[in-house]
Amino acid sequence: MPVHPLEEILHPRSVAVVGASGSGRGGGFVTPLQEFGYRGEIYPVNPKYTELLGLKAYARVRDIPGPVDYVISAVPASQVLGLLDDCAEKGVKGVHLFTARFSETGRRDAAELEREILKRARGAGIRLIGPNCLGVYYPAEGLSFEDDFPKEAGRVGLASQSGGAAGDIIQRAAHAGIRFSKGISYGNALDFNECDYLEYFAQDPETDVILMYIEGARDGKRFFESLQRTTAIKPVVIVKGGRGQSGTRATASHTGSLAGSRQVWDTMVNQAGAVSAANLEELVDFGAAFRFLPPLTGRRIGIAGGGGGTSVLAADECEEAGLDVIPLPAAIREELKAQGSPIWDWISNPADMSIRVDRDWPVGEMLEMMARNENFDLLITFLHGHFRRSQEKPSATEYLEGYHLNELRGKPVFGVMEERRRGGAGAEEQAWLWAMMEEVRARLTAAGIPIYPSVGRAARSAVKVTDYYRRRESR
Amino acid sequence: MPVHPLEEILHPRSVAVVGASGSGRGGGFVTPLQEFGYRGEIYPVNPKYTELLGLKAYARVRDIPGPVDYVISAVPASQVLGLLDDCAEKGVKGVHLFTARFSETGRRDAAELEREILKRARGAGIRLIGPNCLGVYYPAEGLSFEDDFPKEAGRVGLASQSGGAAGDIIQRAAHAGIRFSKGISYGNALDFNECDYLEYFAQDPETDVILMYIEGARDGKRFFESLQRTTAIKPVVIVKGGRGQSGTRATASHTGSLAGSRQVWDTMVNQAGAVSAANLEELVDFGAAFRFLPPLTGRRIGIAGGGGGTSVLAADECEEAGLDVIPLPAAIREELKAQGSPIWDWISNPADMSIRVDRDWPVGEMLEMMARNENFDLLITFLHGHFRRSQEKPSATEYLEGYHLNELRGKPVFGVMEERRRGGAGAEEQAWLWAMMEEVRARLTAAGIPIYPSVGRAARSAVKVTDYYRRRESR
Repeated sequence: MPVHPLEEILHPRSVAVVGASGSGRGGGFVTPLQEFGYRGEIYPVNPKYTELLGLKAYARVRDIPGPVDYVISAVPASQVLGLLDDCAEKGVKGVHLFTARFSETGRRDAAELEREILKRARGAGIRLIGPNCLGVYYPAEGLSFEDDFPKEAGRVGLASQSGGAAGDIIQRAAHAGIRFSKGISYGNALDFNECDYLEYFAQDPETDVILMYIEGARDGKRFFESLQRTTAIKPVVIVKGGRGQSGTRATASHTGSLAGSRQVWDTMVNQAGAVSAANLEELVDFGAAFRFLPPLTGRRIGIAGGGGGTSVLAADECEEAGLDVIPLPAAIREELKAQGSPIWDWISNPADMSIRVDRDWPVGEMLEMMARNENFDLLITFLHGHFRRSQEKPSATEYLEGYHLNELRGKPVFGVMEERRRGGAGAEEQAWLWAMMEEVRARLTAAGIPIYPSVGRAARSAVKVTDYYRRRESR
Repeated sequence: MPVHPLEEILHPRSVAVVGASGSGRGGGFVTPLQEFGYRGEIYPVNPKYTELLGLKAYARVRDIPGPVDYVISAVPASQVLGLLDDCAEKGVKGVHLFTARFSETGRRDAAELEREILKRARGAGIRLIGPNCLGVYYPAEGLSFEDDFPKEAGRVGLASQSGGAAGDIIQRAAHAGIRFSKGISYGNALDFNECDYLEYFAQDPETDVILMYIEGARDGKRFFESLQRTTAIKPVVIVKGGRGQSGTRATASHTGSLAGSRQVWDTMVNQAGAVSAANLEELVDFGAAFRFLPPLTGRRIGIAGGGGGTSVLAADECEEAGLDVIPLPAAIREELKAQGSPIWDWISNPADMSIRVDRDWPVGEMLEMMARNENFDLLITFLHGHFRRSQEKPSATEYLEGYHLNELRGKPVFGVMEERRRGGAGAEEQAWLWAMMEEVRARLTAAGIPIYPSVGRAARSAVKVTDYYRRRESR
């Protein structure tokens, strides 16, 4: 198999940051490389400096002594053609144009300059990421466009037409326990476009799940075909920006994309077997379910750990999402009866934890029984509020003891953790609570249990996974 | 107008807590009264104590020397009939039965006892709240069933069939800046039922907006008629627990309710002019919009403060919710041009704040222009992330300076504040951020600006308000 053209520019021996400066985004492209321990040479390029951020600075790319494989351009649009000539001379393979103010401005001369840039790059055999984008986050390679992204690599790939959205997605996903193989912000998609990024991730052995934020497809037919081929081997979750009239207007001024009709798009994504998300929240929700769950097709769910009202609404929301909230299996009733539990005939699925009386009924015991029972395909449990009264300030370990998570025998579990303040908590207690719950979250996601802020979001995410694998099975 | 029967028991001269103890919920009903500064006498009743929580304790209600108006029962179900005889002797007007294990257990003898209790209470002229509920939160009167609810009173009324849900709603609502006139958890609705609570809030001069969590209506026809009369004067937002098969099963074991079909319910609520919420999140979201917005019918929205992708998705989500994301009015373009802004022809609605270049473009300036422009009915602005780079650790005051909130001339504004962690932030920085954003939230809600965690939730809430007032106008 030939090496994907994007792969050829993602392992540069050196990176030049043109327009680097001591402050703002220009310098911002240098420091993440340093922070992420990029192993190649980093060359700040700016005639105003002889040294920048502890590195020798150069006036022009052609002044750099060693080979330059990859260039990040933070110079104004008017200087890009000259920069490309310099890059051609140095044998640069890939240029990431952070530089913006092209077709997205709606101005004719800017769009013309954009076309000229593509022509010049093609003539010199240089591939372009962008323009008008934040470029590449590839933690294993030490590449990043933000200092504060996770340093660890993961197995989810992201292609985002918006740089801000890319940052949002990566940070939200980090919170959800997701780590990335690569995340690429690609802006106006002048050279490499959405099809190239999709096809890249499809063949990438480092990527299992693909997330996309896309405003417009430059080549609809090719995109559909790529998508169809990709979803046969990896799940793809896509959020489309510019679905309505006003959103389409907004994409034009953002990445110069022609967004196209919502109906056509939805039909296309659906037919191709990809998963649609309405917003970044859903993109990360669905992404986490694909990342953490096995290839699940069964939908019989067990729910434990909430009180009465919580249990009732959990049943409704799971059912409305498409899960099958089965009655409590007889075997579990019998087991409870044999234990002498006074609520054996009363407890149900969802298992309302507020009706325990005779002893401190542990949710973990119910989860264990549900995990052992073959009638359940997956479980949802609640991770907040329940222990509020009995445990004043539990450690994460104490908090989690009640859940018996090591006894769940590989049955998929979703955790629901509302991140809300504790009523009446002072600043110190609240800070403690956030930190403790954060540790609980980190431990659970590390154990392969995705955490959602509401049962509805967990349930809808689980159904997307079962939809996808049912479809794949039926092919 | 006659005094509503519920009103007659909500201003007791004294409260007896029967089954009070030093720990657990029994004692838990005493301490909130103390915490909330209840001005009448508090009588713990429990033969095991002579003194409890600093108060003289009594063996039986009949032993209390002074008058007893209101009794909270935390004794086992088997003792309730005897308690009612005692209450009759003392001339008690109202009894809140925290006591549970009645019809909700599905056991015949328990349901029979429940019926006998109603009969006994009626014979003695005693009104009942419950059983199987947490009772009354009435901050202005010093009544509460939790220590940590807000002490300040507000103008939203809550009737919740579930006690856990009541607590959830009150705490979530507190976070959203909502305060309550009264919040009542009413459980099995044996005597006072959902119609009584609704009619009470309808006539209550302390209540402007009504929230309900309801599992089953005991008298569907009366409930519909009450609802119809109420929505003609006050908005009512209802979340129904037990909408599907499994949820209905769950309501039976929670409050012994027969939930009934979802379709019938939805049609009824809709025809009555009430607002349906799918879960507690939506209940509070919609409640906050009704609480904070004026009687709004216009839907032309201005959006400012996000970056490119955020703006695109905000336009989509507002449009999909039913708002009208109008193009940027010509007058604003002209004003920007006159100011010499280089993006006057490029900026749009939503106003993408990431395209500012020549200076630190303040979102406040755009919000001000939108507020001055008569083409906009309401505005949405983003309150997180935007100032991340330029302000390292702003105070709430510094943070809010960029928003010019005092210059918005009474135009309704929604704030969107994502509560997520700052990537790479240590525990201390994160604690600072939570505290700062919490202060920002408190100041904004105090200024009448509701805060939502996503633009979609803000938009859907705004549309519920316009739907309601359009309907009221057209009657």
